[in-house]
Amino acid sequence: MTTTWQRAETLSLAECWTLLRSARMGRVGLWDDRGPQVLPVNHNVVDETIVFRTDLYSSLAEGSRGSRVAFEADELDDRMESGWSVLVVGRAEHVEDPAELAALHARLDEPWAPGSRPLVARIVPDQVTGRRFHRQ
Amino acid sequence: MTTTWQRAETLSLAECWTLLRSARMGRVGLWDDRGPQVLPVNHNVVDETIVFRTDLYSSLAEGSRGSRVAFEADELDDRMESGWSVLVVGRAEHVEDPAELAALHARLDEPWAPGSRPLVARIVPDQVTGRRFHRQ
Repeated sequence: MTTTWQRAETLSLAECWTLLRSARMGRVGLWDDRGPQVLPVNHNVVDETIVFRTDLYSSLAEGSRGSRVAFEADELDDRMESGWSVLVVGRAEHVEDPAELAALHARLDEPWAPGSRPLVARIVPDQVTGRRFHRQ
Repeated sequence: MTTTWQRAETLSLAECWTLLRSARMGRVGLWDDRGPQVLPVNHNVVDETIVFRTDLYSSLAEGSRGSRVAFEADELDDRMESGWSVLVVGRAEHVEDPAELAALHARLDEPWAPGSRPLVARIVPDQVTGRRFHRQ
C-alpha cells in the first residue's frame, strides 16, 4: 500500500470568485424542518451573489427564504488527489422584484421551463473561502 | 434559445446504496458555530453507514461529533442535464472503539497519512433518498 496524503492551499478571495464563476453547478446546504440537506443546483454568479432557480414548493425554495445557507462548488477528482473547493456562506433570499427578476432572467444560463414559474433565489455571501488540494 | 427542462426520477433505496458505493467522494453538510457548511470528503460505505476520515480539530471533526448531518453524493454533468444525486441524512459520530477502528481501517480505501492520527467518523442514516435526472 502506497502512502499518499494531501496538501491544501488556501485560495484568495479573487481566486474563489473566479472558480465560482467557472463552475456551472454547486450544492446548497440548508436546514429545514426535515433536518440538514445538501442539494445540487445550477448556479450563476451575478454581482458577487450566487443565483439559482428552483421549483416552487421545493425544499430548496423553502430553505432559501431568508435563511442562512451554505453553497459549495468544487472540481475534484474522485480520490480528491487534486482539485479545488469553494465554500460560500450567507443569507438566501427569494428574488421578488419584477425588474430584478427580468434583469436576472436575461443573465441566467438556463432557459426557463415552459409553463412553469420557477423561483429565483440568491445567496448574499458573508463568507467565501476556498482550498486547492494537491497530491503531495 | 432552445427550450430544455428536466425530469427527475425517484431512485429506490437499493439503487441509492449501489450509487453511494460506486462514488468515491461526496459532500457533508453540517451546521456548527460558524453556521452551515458543505465540505467534500472521500467516503466509504460500510454496513450501510457512510464512513470518512478527517483531520482532528477540523470543522468536519467538530461537526460530526454526535450531530445530525447531511451527506450528498452525485454524478452530474455540469448543466445537470443527466446524472444522479443521493442524499443521506443521519447522525454523525466519531468511531472510538479500537477494535472497530481497526476493522474500519482495513476496509477504508485511502491509506492513513503517516505520523497523524486521523479521525474516523461515520454517518448512521435515518433517511436515504435519491433522484436521477434526465434531459427531456
